[in-house]
Amino acid sequence: MSARDINAQVEKEATTLQDLETPCAVLDEARMQRNIERLQRRLRELGVAFRPHLKTAKSVEIARRMMPTPAGPATVSTLREAEQFASDGVRDILYAVGIAPAKLDRVLELRRAGIDLSIILDSREQARAVAAKSCEANDPVPALIEIDADGHRAGVRPGDPLLVAIGNELQSGGAELRGVMTHAGGSYDHPGVEALILAAEQERLAVVTAAQALREAKLPCPVVSVGSTPTAHFASHLEGVTDVRAGVFVFFDLVMAGLGVCTLDDIALSVLATVIGHQRDKGWIITDAGWMAMSRDRGTANQQVDQGYGLVCDAQGRPYGDLIVAQANQEHGILELRPGSRAALPELPLGTLVRILPNHACASAAQHDCYHVLDAGGDVRAQWTRFGGW
Amino acid sequence: MSARDINAQVEKEATTLQDLETPCAVLDEARMQRNIERLQRRLRELGVAFRPHLKTAKSVEIARRMMPTPAGPATVSTLREAEQFASDGVRDILYAVGIAPAKLDRVLELRRAGIDLSIILDSREQARAVAAKSCEANDPVPALIEIDADGHRAGVRPGDPLLVAIGNELQSGGAELRGVMTHAGGSYDHPGVEALILAAEQERLAVVTAAQALREAKLPCPVVSVGSTPTAHFASHLEGVTDVRAGVFVFFDLVMAGLGVCTLDDIALSVLATVIGHQRDKGWIITDAGWMAMSRDRGTANQQVDQGYGLVCDAQGRPYGDLIVAQANQEHGILELRPGSRAALPELPLGTLVRILPNHACASAAQHDCYHVLDAGGDVRAQWTRFGGW
Repeated sequence: MSARDINAQVEKEATTLQDLETPCAVLDEARMQRNIERLQRRLRELGVAFRPHLKTAKSVEIARRMMPTPAGPATVSTLREAEQFASDGVRDILYAVGIAPAKLDRVLELRRAGIDLSIILDSREQARAVAAKSCEANDPVPALIEIDADGHRAGVRPGDPLLVAIGNELQSGGAELRGVMTHAGGSYDHPGVEALILAAEQERLAVVTAAQALREAKLPCPVVSVGSTPTAHFASHLEGVTDVRAGVFVFFDLVMAGLGVCTLDDIALSVLATVIGHQRDKGWIITDAGWMAMSRDRGTANQQVDQGYGLVCDAQGRPYGDLIVAQANQEHGILELRPGSRAALPELPLGTLVRILPNHACASAAQHDCYHVLDAGGDVRAQWTRFGGW
Repeated sequence: MSARDINAQVEKEATTLQDLETPCAVLDEARMQRNIERLQRRLRELGVAFRPHLKTAKSVEIARRMMPTPAGPATVSTLREAEQFASDGVRDILYAVGIAPAKLDRVLELRRAGIDLSIILDSREQARAVAAKSCEANDPVPALIEIDADGHRAGVRPGDPLLVAIGNELQSGGAELRGVMTHAGGSYDHPGVEALILAAEQERLAVVTAAQALREAKLPCPVVSVGSTPTAHFASHLEGVTDVRAGVFVFFDLVMAGLGVCTLDDIALSVLATVIGHQRDKGWIITDAGWMAMSRDRGTANQQVDQGYGLVCDAQGRPYGDLIVAQANQEHGILELRPGSRAALPELPLGTLVRILPNHACASAAQHDCYHVLDAGGDVRAQWTRFGGW
């Protein structure tokens, strides 16, 4: 029996948490479904379309639950995602990372297969490369101009004349200017309702202003797209916006809870771990979930509550309170009470199963090749594959 | 043509860096070979056996180059590694993470297949569980007692009477006490030759003292094992030690360079990335290698030189000097000159290929499913699969 057969057998038989090999990723399906419905309802009320970002889950099963229809629309962060979801029937895909000219052949290959794959860019050099490829392939590749709403990463500022120059380069060169998009990455740094409402309005204003500049220059701008999980949940209105992208909301995580976007009870993803030892004089409990299982993400390090590498819950998903993964090695997680805690260290004997809520769901999920899906009773009802790579 | 076919085709044709899809992991085979030979030579001179740790590379091709023979010996950090390497013919394997009783069925399955798989533990509870399983299976499972050399993680202190109690529990209960082992994880925190020589001696003394205590109690202790890349390279002698484990030396990385264990020219692993944009007024160059490609590891953050998420080199692997990955999003890396640098920002136009040296090779390699292997001329001569999971 090969190694793979052994694992397949073990995993096929898993119906309770006790049957799973730890560490592994566990998904509370009811919480995920609630998170999806919450945002779908919100966006319906705001009157905008939803183009969910599939980069958090990278799973066909989860994508189907997030998207308005099996054909999309969807947002992805890699061409590998575009290819995988396309092979599952998704037809309307935005690849939302600034295009490298060398990647245009893969873009065109997908478009030839009937996928309405659009791309983003923020420079004349990119626009020229996209226009040239469009002509060569006799296929006007649709491109959105990325707008810099808050100075946190890429994009053209809404008032920059470069915007119209890029638009002209695309349209006159043989590509398709489809609109503008931005991502309010800065919203991750500002907790609280007021700050998030403000970030959402700043994000909206940036793209609406950019769209207006393009239209005033007689350029088309059918799509006006915003997207980040915090702003999607706090925008007071989205006038002038046509669609919203968001990804991490599907699982939520400790960073989002720290921002006030969700509660701990909304976090649908956790890492199942086993207690493998103790250093009792130090107040340490050691588990088999180190950074390989949790990721090295320390996204709560600068938040009001630092959750270490994750917040520890019992096997039913109830937080112990102040118990966090204070240190992580490759395959060891060291659980400790958070500094200043007056709680008693829980008694977790050798072999105890715990579930750890992640700082950043995108990063922790990426360390695993599947999700073990829990039903309402806490049993494992399915195993959903996830993929990685580029 | 499915998504997978498209990728397979692209990758088969890659013979130069320009043909690769970025981001991806690139391996300088000559550097790796030099790193392996350096440590092998050292350990021969010190008169100890080598049991390389395969957790860094997780690749059958690389394991074969690290191990003394195709059958081992080897060290692994997961049972998945044990299973994968066993299916490639490795016969002598140490699983060097404290055993969880629920994992003993997989251990026994491998042992039934003829693998001399040994485990580690540091408690009487574990020893009892291993002894009970050994009796049940009529197979005395060989166990090493983990020793705590420097207080950084798991293990029994060398002078603790618990040591003999665990040994007795194993031997009288029907398991096999095979010896003692430790990992000088604390050596990662102390740069400089003198500190590393000291850490190595502390590590050696811990296991030799523990072995002596077991032998004085009339318990067997054939194996006395130490292992960490820094101490393996700086031990002045290893009297009383029978074997050395080390893993990250195969690639080396910026943390090891910061400690003084290697130079930048020894680092064999890099991440190939493409420039996808600029924010010129901020001095930012944006690439397609974010934390998904680099990992979130910030191991140099507390070293004398903080390398951000990685040190940037040209496509030939020559560092630009002060250019680092200062910020990382999921699929974006922001390159900046390090704070205080007086160098000029290099002109890296859209599409430029760069290679990024990682903080921590174990973590960055884990973000990729293969290595693109470069020959001495810098061409891609092979693609070696790596695996993950547990």
